Amino acid sequence: PRRYTITLLPGDGIGPEVISVAKDVLLLAGSLEGIKYDFREMLLGGAALDATGVPLPEETLSVAKQSDAVLLGAIGGYKWDINEKHLKPETGLLQIRQGLRVFANLRPATVFPQLVDASTLKREIAEGVDLMVVRELTGGIYFGKPRGFGTNENGEEIGYNTEIYAAHEIDRIAHVAFKIAQKRSGKLCSVDKANVLEASMFWRKRVLAIAQEYPDVELSHMYVDNASMQLIRNPKQFDTIVTNNIFGDILSDEASMITGSIGMLPSASLGDSGPGLFEPIHGSAPDIAGQDKANPFATVLSAAMLLRYGLGEDKAAGRIENAVLDTLNRGFRTADIYSAGTKLVGCKQLGEEILKSV
Amino acid sequence: PRRYTITLLPGDGIGPEVISVAKDVLLLAGSLEGIKYDFREMLLGGAALDATGVPLPEETLSVAKQSDAVLLGAIGGYKWDINEKHLKPETGLLQIRQGLRVFANLRPATVFPQLVDASTLKREIAEGVDLMVVRELTGGIYFGKPRGFGTNENGEEIGYNTEIYAAHEIDRIAHVAFKIAQKRSGKLCSVDKANVLEASMFWRKRVLAIAQEYPDVELSHMYVDNASMQLIRNPKQFDTIVTNNIFGDILSDEASMITGSIGMLPSASLGDSGPGLFEPIHGSAPDIAGQDKANPFATVLSAAMLLRYGLGEDKAAGRIENAVLDTLNRGFRTADIYSAGTKLVGCKQLGEEILKSV
Ligand SMILES: CC(C)[C@H](C(=O)O)[C@@H](O)C(=O)O
Ligand SMILES: CC(C)[C@H](C(=O)O)[C@@H](O)C(=O)O
Repeated sequence: PRRYTITLLPGDGIGPEVISVAKDVLLLAGSLEGIKYDFREMLLGGAALDATGVPLPEETLSVAKQSDAVLLGAIGGYKWDINEKHLKPETGLLQIRQGLRVFANLRPATVFPQLVDASTLKREIAEGVDLMVVRELTGGIYFGKPRGFGTNENGEEIGYNTEIYAAHEIDRIAHVAFKIAQKRSGKLCSVDKANVLEASMFWRKRVLAIAQEYPDVELSHMYVDNASMQLIRNPKQFDTIVTNNIFGDILSDEASMITGSIGMLPSASLGDSGPGLFEPIHGSAPDIAGQDKANPFATVLSAAMLLRYGLGEDKAAGRIENAVLDTLNRGFRTADIYSAGTKLVGCKQLGEEILKSV
Repeated sequence: PRRYTITLLPGDGIGPEVISVAKDVLLLAGSLEGIKYDFREMLLGGAALDATGVPLPEETLSVAKQSDAVLLGAIGGYKWDINEKHLKPETGLLQIRQGLRVFANLRPATVFPQLVDASTLKREIAEGVDLMVVRELTGGIYFGKPRGFGTNENGEEIGYNTEIYAAHEIDRIAHVAFKIAQKRSGKLCSVDKANVLEASMFWRKRVLAIAQEYPDVELSHMYVDNASMQLIRNPKQFDTIVTNNIFGDILSDEASMITGSIGMLPSASLGDSGPGLFEPIHGSAPDIAGQDKANPFATVLSAAMLLRYGLGEDKAAGRIENAVLDTLNRGFRTADIYSAGTKLVGCKQLGEEILKSV
């Protein structure tokens, strides 16, 4: 049997609950497809801060690097909100993204037909939305230097960051996006603010250069302010979107909310080589942590992305994706996606129902 | 009678058509309230590029500076899209904002009860939305230096910008926002990305400091990615939002699209002293320019903001705002907001109907 080492990072809040479900689902789908796993559970985020004093312990990163894929629950919580930057759970997340060099963040926003009414958008607008945001994840203003605090020439306090992209950073994310667009509808929209920012003008120039290699993909460009409107006005006009780190942060969250069920949405962060990082797009939901109320679907679907994009195990991935649809069709819902006529269950029981469908 | 000098900047596309209507409305509402105007019509944007070779001629800026208020139509068009940055219509807009030092951009997003069905959001979500985005307009990454193109230490091409805020820039926009929140519901939400960006941490620190002077305002903070979701999930949770230039660009457009009728939305850009700049939030719509199809309501409402915020002429402003509501109630609509059972008219005729209601 094929054997993979998987690093599990339960993290904070509802993280451990959803990771526990996803692990069981991975195990079952794997065993049915001749896959074995060695799981290594490691600390990240607030859990790591409490236990070791740092949000990303060295051991976590080195174990993650040596594994075949990394599955993350969620990080963060009120408790650590007042911490200084280097002691924030979020900093651990940024560090592991950079440490694993996973520069391509794939965030599908899919409206599940069973859940279309959960969207705040009208049914005819939300129905059938199926788009993919490809977000640059290890560059731009998130990591650009110089950054920090200081004083300006008038002796006044300032805070500053640098939005910066080098050619190879744009080229490699553009290649990922064009390849994804090829496999999808062949339409790619690059989002920038090239009417104002030099970093965006350069982004657009490089995307146009890379486009030469993908004559079969229909490339368009859109300003980020317009994109934030068009996502609401008519989300179905989009198939694949590629954009920088900060615009991707904002637009992928907007796109996910359009579906009405962010508890359903997974993500994959990939590099050129080495393990990918897979995580639900929702947060750690500290208010419902430990209450068996969390929705594990997004993490289960992240496990499916892990199999598909991280390990090339399409069959096992397909099993999981089908199991999610089947469980939805059988009417099982956690509170966040519950509606009259469906069956309200907790995180654990939903996990068991998914296992029945695998 | 009170006498004001108003600079009119028709600009490009549908700009001249909507400015012409707004001018007539200003004249009539003014004459009924004992106000006289000296109008000076000047060039900005593509129109200025074609006539003078630059997007903001010196004469335009100096006339604007000497006037009591500036009313702008819209700028931009396909024709100039390929221009280099310093020859883009948009650059003229950025220059006049900076030249007039209008650091506070007020963008109301109001759902008109008559038009609630134009929103792509469900009626119960969109109904009653009435929020105000206060966007910092003359700082941040739009104007920060260093910026440009170059090569990095590996000899690789780069593009970069600087997001930077000095204390006084944050303090003054915070004061504007707190005062607006005081006059509205007393709730202010400051949007930043303080979990990642130093510029945002500094923003939050200054907003918290200024908050001491406004104990009657309930201040909250939200990350920009979450704000982009919450605007869709439940826009009515917001009253006044304050944020930086680039986040304000994105979020104010998102908020305006929630209303479903961006053809209705005005904006005001104000400084500490000197004339304010008033403009509709929609663009120049080159595809319908010159066809008498433009919706003049947003520019007419911008003229009302000019009277209220620019000249302190609340009565004349109220006349215009009421005239807009009355015209809507009488069923007159341009194509962008038309629905079955209402009366479809062109830009000019809508202008005449508004005049009847003033
Ligand atoms: C937690 C935060 C640092 C992170 C980001 O901004 O990238 C999150 O919002 C995300 O999108 O994964
Ligand atoms: C045209 C462009 C430069 C401008 C901006 O980004 O500020 C516009 O989008 C706006 O919001 O007024």
